[in-house]
Amino acid sequence: MPCTADRRCAIPADKIKMYVVIATVFLHVLSTSSLLTGPTAKQTTGIPWPMPQKIESTTETQGLSDKVFSFNVDLVPKGCEIVLDAADRYFDLIFYAGRKSKSLQPHASDFELFSSLGNAAPRKLLKEMVIKVSGECEDFPYLEMDERYEMIIDTDSASLMAASVWGILRGFETFSQLVWQSSDGQLVVNETQIQDFPRFPWRGVMLDTARHFLPLETLKLSLDAMAYNKMNVFHWHIVDDQSFPYQSRTFPDLSAKGAYDPYTHVYSQSDMMDLIEYARVRGIRVVPEFDTPGHSQSWGKGIPDLLTKCYKGGRFTGGFGPMDPSRNSTFQFMSTFLKEIVEVFPDRYLHIGGDEVSFSCWKSNPLVNTFMAKMGFGRNFAKLEGYYVKRILDAAHSYKAAAVVWQEVFQNGVAIANDTVVHVWKYRDHPSTRLAQVTRSGHRALLSANWYLSKIWFGKDWPKFYLNDPTNFNGTTEQKKLVLGGEMCMWGEFVDATNVISRCWPRACAVAERLWSASHVVNVARATPRLEEQRCRMIKRGIPAEPVNGPGHCEYEY
Amino acid sequence: MPCTADRRCAIPADKIKMYVVIATVFLHVLSTSSLLTGPTAKQTTGIPWPMPQKIESTTETQGLSDKVFSFNVDLVPKGCEIVLDAADRYFDLIFYAGRKSKSLQPHASDFELFSSLGNAAPRKLLKEMVIKVSGECEDFPYLEMDERYEMIIDTDSASLMAASVWGILRGFETFSQLVWQSSDGQLVVNETQIQDFPRFPWRGVMLDTARHFLPLETLKLSLDAMAYNKMNVFHWHIVDDQSFPYQSRTFPDLSAKGAYDPYTHVYSQSDMMDLIEYARVRGIRVVPEFDTPGHSQSWGKGIPDLLTKCYKGGRFTGGFGPMDPSRNSTFQFMSTFLKEIVEVFPDRYLHIGGDEVSFSCWKSNPLVNTFMAKMGFGRNFAKLEGYYVKRILDAAHSYKAAAVVWQEVFQNGVAIANDTVVHVWKYRDHPSTRLAQVTRSGHRALLSANWYLSKIWFGKDWPKFYLNDPTNFNGTTEQKKLVLGGEMCMWGEFVDATNVISRCWPRACAVAERLWSASHVVNVARATPRLEEQRCRMIKRGIPAEPVNGPGHCEYEY
Repeated sequence: MPCTADRRCAIPADKIKMYVVIATVFLHVLSTSSLLTGPTAKQTTGIPWPMPQKIESTTETQGLSDKVFSFNVDLVPKGCEIVLDAADRYFDLIFYAGRKSKSLQPHASDFELFSSLGNAAPRKLLKEMVIKVSGECEDFPYLEMDERYEMIIDTDSASLMAASVWGILRGFETFSQLVWQSSDGQLVVNETQIQDFPRFPWRGVMLDTARHFLPLETLKLSLDAMAYNKMNVFHWHIVDDQSFPYQSRTFPDLSAKGAYDPYTHVYSQSDMMDLIEYARVRGIRVVPEFDTPGHSQSWGKGIPDLLTKCYKGGRFTGGFGPMDPSRNSTFQFMSTFLKEIVEVFPDRYLHIGGDEVSFSCWKSNPLVNTFMAKMGFGRNFAKLEGYYVKRILDAAHSYKAAAVVWQEVFQNGVAIANDTVVHVWKYRDHPSTRLAQVTRSGHRALLSANWYLSKIWFGKDWPKFYLNDPTNFNGTTEQKKLVLGGEMCMWGEFVDATNVISRCWPRACAVAERLWSASHVVNVARATPRLEEQRCRMIKRGIPAEPVNGPGHCEYEY
Repeated sequence: MPCTADRRCAIPADKIKMYVVIATVFLHVLSTSSLLTGPTAKQTTGIPWPMPQKIESTTETQGLSDKVFSFNVDLVPKGCEIVLDAADRYFDLIFYAGRKSKSLQPHASDFELFSSLGNAAPRKLLKEMVIKVSGECEDFPYLEMDERYEMIIDTDSASLMAASVWGILRGFETFSQLVWQSSDGQLVVNETQIQDFPRFPWRGVMLDTARHFLPLETLKLSLDAMAYNKMNVFHWHIVDDQSFPYQSRTFPDLSAKGAYDPYTHVYSQSDMMDLIEYARVRGIRVVPEFDTPGHSQSWGKGIPDLLTKCYKGGRFTGGFGPMDPSRNSTFQFMSTFLKEIVEVFPDRYLHIGGDEVSFSCWKSNPLVNTFMAKMGFGRNFAKLEGYYVKRILDAAHSYKAAAVVWQEVFQNGVAIANDTVVHVWKYRDHPSTRLAQVTRSGHRALLSANWYLSKIWFGKDWPKFYLNDPTNFNGTTEQKKLVLGGEMCMWGEFVDATNVISRCWPRACAVAERLWSASHVVNVARATPRLEEQRCRMIKRGIPAEPVNGPGHCEYEY
């Protein structure tokens, strides 16, 4: 028994993580009356998701009251508005989530607390948490941002320290998750020490707004859910064959003619500013994808002669294929368009797609064939694809953007720059072999294979996402360092505003913990009650996170 | 070409259905500008779901304006408040669905309409629809209720006629679905004649509120969705092993000790009155299920000695099995409890469950074994189950309730009354053979096998529900008449308020059309654009009906 008489735990440093997690879960389960025995899913209380790198806690608790507690931001440097905004946001999440009005009091008030405790000593209330930012205030999240933080919640004081605003954001999230409601109705937090940092810097959610349009409010709800799981990249697969909702200021016809509806099913420039800002203050990068040369049918509606005309028996069929790489006008257009994109989206990274290019239309087109001959590509259309992608990469590079490409670009041997990130997605194509190849060539990689959450299975399917590790391939330590992380992908064929959030969450929590927590946090049985708590926590905060572990309930239902 | 110069269609009566459906779909598709070509799902405009038995329409349209149109209820007998309420409800659905406020005007106003038409003649506005109820006003929906209606929308007049209020309700729904928005922005309705009636009288949706609690608002949303699809039975699987949310006035401990939470996760008596009333005015019966002797773990928390104690090695294990049929107190309790139930729920039918009874606990219990010997059952525990169910059926019968039982009760040879309905659910157990057996024995049957929508598959899965026909078994015409219809079942393990509606709908629309429309309406390709319209119509009315046919969009997104 590692705990001393005063109920503080003293555990050898190398055993801290395991011991404390188990002890905390066990003790919190004992201390709440809301858990039913029987065949329903159990929940922890006050255990964070994703699991911090190092967490130590005792059974000693302090109470929290909105009338007493505050975040002390005296030590936050000027210019760190992100921290001040977050302090307000997390204060509300801690004290008012699940309430329709701040004046409602589902938690026990101080008066009720004293009454219900009867003769027992009233619980000491935590007065403040001191927030310290030791480095400079940064404004925009970026790949290399520092998300490390430390937290101490002691008997007398509490503090949250980080070098950057990003670390503070992650710490706020953790603190809000440490708070739980005790059986006497009061919000409490256990004495806790945390040292935390992410295992991977790129922890993404990809949403597809082209197969079905997703309203801005839905995208914001998704950003909320990401923040609650410390995910930090919104990969926005914004356009595709089916529709072009991005309202370009340079080429307004793209959405005027290519969107499902030019007025109601588009993202205006101000919508995008709004969304990028919403993400920014949550430490979430917005990486847009403009996928070419394939997946581009909707582009052709607004821009004549951009797509390849398909031929059959020597005649134009009326159908179109990928972007036409035989015309210089195609690259002129793309260069101008990408110039706008890198201005609109502040992140350095831009996903340029490059997946699933069909060669049949190129093969049929006389001008493309002439161009192939002129370029000396023979009948190797992968070379033509490579030529196209290389010119797009060069354009992006000229605007100082770094590119992300789907794995086909790498496999087709395109000469990609060193800072190009290769996105591995084909789950039937030996993703671990691909990761090994990509990193052996010195390129950085992202994993999405086996994280296509748009695919569904009946029952408890999250463990397969949970156990999908981006470094699970044969390679050197140096190679593994080239894995930036990964993304869960939610393709839009069968989701829209009606179900996209409930289909993503809490299944995506499994991906979030894999990408944030230590590699040894892989026990599904131990994760299950924590995931249940995280699901209910998200519901309390307005995210319709669906049941994934069979029968159960949340204190606050959606 | 069956249409004359004045654009009215004159089609031989025996060809009406097919011709008109095709013509109408084709013409409506032509007349709207909101359809994209390409790989996205197409929608019809103004075609009803489920398909009426007989529908004839022309391309001639009349406009509808909320300032001009009204339902004329002068011919509705006194006491038919259901019709008057529905007239208000459907007026709002027709003119204001999808708007946040009635004062907003997304449809073209009369003024705008005239302007946009320029020199074209303004469209004639439909002034009223005359509602005629020829029979008596009935208050409560019941199995044998008459849902037949006729509708005529002519150049000069419109009328909706039915013998009962129930037929009028179904007609209102159809009329609201015939209205569509033309490319000039105005609501219009085509000249149409309809004679319609359901193929089956029992068209149900089963929801499970025991594996996860569903808030009252969610249940009401489900009733709305049912009404929009002419479904008429809410089979409420209200309690099960995991929880007992039904708040009994006779035995309050059942929910006080057996619910997930005795205050927040229960249905109070007034909640149930509220829900039954909400269903009643929509012509929906509420058939509660209290499943015993198995699936009853939660009952045991509030009622001591109700469940069988399980033994191992001669000692009580601490665990419990099904209801204890060896004690007379069990039946005394059940009789008193069922007396309350038949008072609370006005429908004549009561689902008493009877599925999946495990015999292992009964086998282990000494008192049960003594009872078996006394009754001369030998080691045949199916006889004990039969004995239990027979006594429950007798109790229900004594209160003039008719019972529905899951198929096991029939298969175990229980002597069930003639008016007992057998519910066939086992999809791996030759449901067509079971239906044949049940009806050969003279019993009425319900089909749910292959309509377990809680099971999910990736992609377009609704055609398998659509093509599941309750009369698809070898049997006489008399036998087929004994099939009352069926129910789609949504078991609650993986759904709660976050996703239950989007998981049910529009997949359950497939079941609704199978149960309402003529047996020859089985063409999936033709149904697809109609289902798309129905999905978008439901979204416009506030139902989060998920995408089921791949990429596409709705004019009003959720």
